[in-house]
Order: sequence, then structure tokens, then C-alpha cells
Amino acid sequence: MAVNLQPPGELAPVAGVRLAVAQAGIRYQQRDDLVLLDLAPGSQVAAVFTRNAFCAAPVLVARQHLQRSGGEIRGLLINSGNANAGTGQAGLQAARRSCMAAARLLDCPAEAVLPFSTGVIGEALPVDRIESAMPRLAAASSAQWLPAARAIMTTDTMPKAASRRMIVGERTVTITGMAKGAGMICPDMATMLAYVACDAQLEQGDLQALLVAAVGESFNRITIDGDTSTNDACVLIATGQSGVVCRAGEPAFAALRETVTALCVELAQAVVRDGEGATRLLRMCVEAAADTAEARAVAYTVAHSPLVKTAAFAGDPNWGRILAAVGRSGVENLDISKVDLYLGEVCVLRGGEPAAEYREALGAEVAARAEYSVRIVLGRGAAMTEIWTSDFSYEYVRINAEYRS
Amino acid sequence: MAVNLQPPGELAPVAGVRLAVAQAGIRYQQRDDLVLLDLAPGSQVAAVFTRNAFCAAPVLVARQHLQRSGGEIRGLLINSGNANAGTGQAGLQAARRSCMAAARLLDCPAEAVLPFSTGVIGEALPVDRIESAMPRLAAASSAQWLPAARAIMTTDTMPKAASRRMIVGERTVTITGMAKGAGMICPDMATMLAYVACDAQLEQGDLQALLVAAVGESFNRITIDGDTSTNDACVLIATGQSGVVCRAGEPAFAALRETVTALCVELAQAVVRDGEGATRLLRMCVEAAADTAEARAVAYTVAHSPLVKTAAFAGDPNWGRILAAVGRSGVENLDISKVDLYLGEVCVLRGGEPAAEYREALGAEVAARAEYSVRIVLGRGAAMTEIWTSDFSYEYVRINAEYRS
Repeated sequence: MAVNLQPPGELAPVAGVRLAVAQAGIRYQQRDDLVLLDLAPGSQVAAVFTRNAFCAAPVLVARQHLQRSGGEIRGLLINSGNANAGTGQAGLQAARRSCMAAARLLDCPAEAVLPFSTGVIGEALPVDRIESAMPRLAAASSAQWLPAARAIMTTDTMPKAASRRMIVGERTVTITGMAKGAGMICPDMATMLAYVACDAQLEQGDLQALLVAAVGESFNRITIDGDTSTNDACVLIATGQSGVVCRAGEPAFAALRETVTALCVELAQAVVRDGEGATRLLRMCVEAAADTAEARAVAYTVAHSPLVKTAAFAGDPNWGRILAAVGRSGVENLDISKVDLYLGEVCVLRGGEPAAEYREALGAEVAARAEYSVRIVLGRGAAMTEIWTSDFSYEYVRINAEYRS
Repeated sequence: MAVNLQPPGELAPVAGVRLAVAQAGIRYQQRDDLVLLDLAPGSQVAAVFTRNAFCAAPVLVARQHLQRSGGEIRGLLINSGNANAGTGQAGLQAARRSCMAAARLLDCPAEAVLPFSTGVIGEALPVDRIESAMPRLAAASSAQWLPAARAIMTTDTMPKAASRRMIVGERTVTITGMAKGAGMICPDMATMLAYVACDAQLEQGDLQALLVAAVGESFNRITIDGDTSTNDACVLIATGQSGVVCRAGEPAFAALRETVTALCVELAQAVVRDGEGATRLLRMCVEAAADTAEARAVAYTVAHSPLVKTAAFAGDPNWGRILAAVGRSGVENLDISKVDLYLGEVCVLRGGEPAAEYREALGAEVAARAEYSVRIVLGRGAAMTEIWTSDFSYEYVRINAEYRS
């Protein structure tokens, strides 16, 4: 039911990044569920993680390893089917054991491996199956991005991955990334799991700054159900093998930031397009807010309203539900006589009054589209935001009632 | 699909309150959609209203009339089928015209009538139909509580009303109330529409204090979908005709407060039991919180999680989704090693670790019940709260996708 989501186009290999996939049988049978990213020595890695207080064991271990290694990471080990979250001390040990197994294969310290898990919360990670599958990950290749994007899927209906190229002087920087996620999506810092690699050369601090900027414009602007995952992580890899050096403050750095951000926006929107049971993609635009926090609060309140989301599913231009959500979004002293509301290009409300030219048929035409914007103009200031969300369908309920049963 | 919700038992007439119902054809055909409560002179009325910034025209007018009349109200006029919200200046005029029509019938000033509307947002209220139906409201009787409770229904599947009696010395105070609501339920101050009348005698300030206390323990503890309505209102009437005087600080006042609160809890839970598409009633109990605000934030975050609600629908003891919601609820510096989680009487998590004795079958037995508690012990302090919510089913999506179509 994905909304205007195409299979990934050609995925360019990134020099210094080799990928391998395997069937470990962690939860799913007859499909790949384990991925290893083998990074050339000298690669730098930056990452942002979920802010959920109940963050998963692999998140805790990955944070620790990243800090100890100063970003000099040699491998990322990712499994689907089990989130290794809510698993206590045993979960931390399982995450560490999986890193040790990958470190033996890569001939590096365990601290140079970052673990990632996605899937069911609250069940023990069968780390022995991961250890057993490790030999099958030895044959890594730089051409395996698509199989890897498939192997990290859970309720996703389609793999999500994209590539970009950037010319700097006479050299080319290649950027390829993949993401997974379709439910429990309301990233507070990053999304479910996303991995972007480039062959530019960056210092770790610059790489982290670039990632935070890109995530703020992409993965931190999406929501499917308002449920921030315990396992969210977004990783940016720089192998340096293109020979292009990008330093903060220089033009190449700004160009790389733009390119990485555009790629992250594409991946983040792909997550919403593949939202569980999604039939529509809504762009929630809040304008003329007093500040960005206020704009975001309004946008997320409307985007999370079950009534707005079910009306969107029905193709019903039910703008009363949008107003009700704006009205409860906690904006202090909102003067409703200054509020305008648009569905797509159609003005519904102007200065708090029903727009004289509005006709139900005009709204219905917009609401029937697979993608449209809801534009809320608050009349309080100059701040604005735009976030992306999906609707609530029968299929959303079916997926989340049946998943894990 | 209401959860353990019985039709109202015997509803006791309240001396000084007469009710009348009529078919005005506002939106529904072949059913009553207009109610008039005719209050004897000398009655006092207190009310609390929605805090939604986009509150409806009748809410604005009712607040104004209540202030001008000092609580000496002679009539309540309630229509279903149209919320008269998002209707601008024209909506305010329609609400005032409906009060004038009722005032002519009751031979009182228009300011002594409070208007209430519930139904679709954003459509003009056909006030002419209300005016035309007014003569049919002339034959009011104190025995019409049940027809009135039916006439104010929208997506409700069952009328909600209850009575209590309280003995004070040799006299009896009678209390009868009714409520409606099944969707757009997350009262910030009061619920959809609820009317409670008693024949005790109270000053308006005391009556308001009593109402605020009762609502805090009842209607302000429920949520179905997190969507606070534009039209919420809860009204408490005291006709004084029992001759029992209840003054703040005296035992009769405390007894009345307890009795009204118990009745409001019954009505509030009835709203959740009749939640749109509801198949279960969940009691979200948060204990050992640092303060009540924190306890409420955690309880509502869990209660609003679409993933928790769809798992509840499936009868799936998916406690990982509960943890994920607790983890994103914004509690500062939550120490997860102090958190306990129970489904019903079954301990799932103790000190942040999976409870050794927990087995999936134990959780599944609880999750299969129509009613159960989710108890979250934060280990931070002595504050606690309990709120009530329903699940998310296919039926919830169907109702909200089809309603208004």
C-alpha cells in the first residue's frame, strides 16, 4: 500500500564500504536478516540515536563503542526480527557477544564494531544464531546495497535506498544510503535505522555536525504513529577513499551537507510512503508561528490526530478535525481570528472564518489525492516547519494487531 | 461493541428539572436531536468547558450567559448532529438565535438559556429548524431523562445516564445525570457533553467548586483518541427543591461531592466503554511518580499510543510497546532500573529487567480480558494517577472514515 514509492534505482558502490547479508533465522525464515558493513581502515563514522529512555541494548553498546573508538569504526552489524530492547543485562551481553563475533571476522577490536537491532521488543536476542551465521558474512562486496536494504526490513513492504554523486574539482564523491522503518516512527533524534556512506574524507566532529544537520531536515520531520522507537539510529560513514577532503566552513563541506540532506529527505519520505497501511502522504506545513517549537508542536499534534488520519484515509476534507487538533496543540493565547487553513491550494478558513469561496467539492478534490499539503497559517510570527506523515487505515490496525501474534 | 456497558437503570426524576425532546431534522432523520432542560426558578448552574482554542460558538455563548446571569439559568438547549464549531460569526449568531427561541418558550431572558451543540464541525447550524421545532418542546416532563440521553447521542451506541440518592437527616437528595461521547474524547477540562442535576440547594461558587472536583476525578481521566473536542461541556444543576442546603465545609457538602463524583465516574467510564469501536477498557495506573503532572504525562502517552491500542485490540500482551511509550513520555532522567510494569496482577518487568517468573501465557491471559489494568511503577516519588482508555480496532477506523461521508 506504499504511497508513490518506487523500488530503489541504481545504487552506486561507495569505495571502502563492502556489504554482506545472511540468513540467521533470528525470527524470519527463508530470508536474509543479518547484515554486515565492512568499512575500510581509516573510515570515520558518526551516528545519532533514539532519545527514548528505554533505548535498546544495541543502542547503549553502539554509543559506548563509538565513544571509545573516537569514530574509527570497522564494522556495522545489523539484525532484523528482534530489537533486543527491554531485555536487561542479558540483552547488553548479547549485543556485546555479537560485536565480538563480527570483530573476529574483521580482525579488529570489538569496540570497532557497532551493533544494531530492529524487530520485536522484549524477547531475548538469539545471539548464538548470529554467531553461527557469521562465516556466511565473509564474502562481502561493495555491490550488495540492495540485498542489505532488503535484509533490514521488518514491516516495510519495499527496500529503501538511494545514491547521489557530487563532483568536487576533478574528483567525484559517491553517497549511497539505505533506511528501514514503517511503524513506531516518530524519530526524536533519528529514525528507525538508516545508514548513509560516502567516500569523502571528513574529521569525526565535522561528520557528526553534518549528520545532525541532515537529520534535522529529514528523519526528524517524519511521523507515522507518534511512537518513537527504542532502537532508532542513523549512521553516516565517510571512508575518505575518493580523496576529496571536506572541512567545515569550506564549499565542499556545504555541498556535501546539501547532498547528504537531499538523500536523507528521500529516504525519510520513503519511510512515510511505506508507513504501515499508508494510503496517503500528507505534508503538514505550519507557517507564521511565533517560533519553531510552536510550529513543530502544531504540526505534530495535527499529524498524530487519529481523527485527522482516519479522515485522510477516507479522502474526506474534514477540516473541522484539523481545527480541533490545532486548538488543542497547546499554543498559548492563540488568536483564531488570525488563522488561515489550506488543503493543498484551496483556502478553507481565512482569518478564523470559513472562506467565502470554499466549496466542499474543492476540498474533496484535494483530499482524494495520494499526496497533498495541509497548510496552517497561525498569524503569530515568522517561524515555520514542514513535516511528513501518513494516514490511518484498516491495514494499519491489521498490521499492528497481527504483528507478533 | 461497547465494553461491559449496560443500558441505564431506573432514572430518578429531579424536582425542578423537566426535560423535553423533539425531532428537528438538523442532520439525523427519524430520531430526536433536540433537547430542552427546563429548570425551575431559583436553580443554580455551574459548568466547565473545553480548553480547545477553537472552541465552538455555543461554548462561547454559554460561557457569556453563565457569567451574565451569575448562574441563575432557566434552560439548557442541546442539539446533536451539528457542533456549530469552526463557523465564525454566523455560528455565534445561530447560537444566540437558538437561545432566544428557547427563552420565548420559557418566558425568560435569552441570557438565562445555555446552548450546547455536538456533531459535525464546520457546517452551518440550521437554526431555522431549531426554531421550527421549538413548539414541540413545550410538553416537558421530569420523567424524560432517558429520551434526552438518547437524543444527544452521535456515534454513541448506547445512552449513558445514572441516578443516585443521598439521605441527609430526614430528607433525600436526588441526583441524575446523562452524558454523550464516543470519539474526539480527551477532555482537557470536561468531557463531550454531560449534564448532572440534583435538588440540593447550593450557592453558585460552591456548586462550581464541587463540579471542578468531581470532573477532576472523572471526566478529566478518560481518553479515547487524544482528540480534545471543540464542544466539551459538563454542567451541574442544583434546583434546591429537596430543601437540603449544602454549604462548603459542612458534612452534607462533602457527601454530595462524593456522590456526584461517583456518578460522574460512572458516566465517564460509560463514555470510554462506548468508545468508537472499543473492545476493551484499559485502566492506566502510574505509580511512584515524582509528581502528578509526570504521572499523567506517562499515563496519557501510553494511553494514546496507536501501537499500544492496536495490540490491546489484538489481545496481545505486547509490553515492549508500553515500555517504548513510557520511554518517550518526556520524564527527565528516568532511571529504567527502577521501573516495574504489571499487566493486571502479572509482573512483567521488575527493576527494569524482565521478571524471572514472567511467561507469555500469563500476560496473554490478562490481555484477553475485556477490562484490565496496566500498572507502571516509576520509582521516583509518591505521586500516582489512574486514567481510563479504550483500544483501536478496525471498527474505530471504519467509524471515523465513514462518519460525515
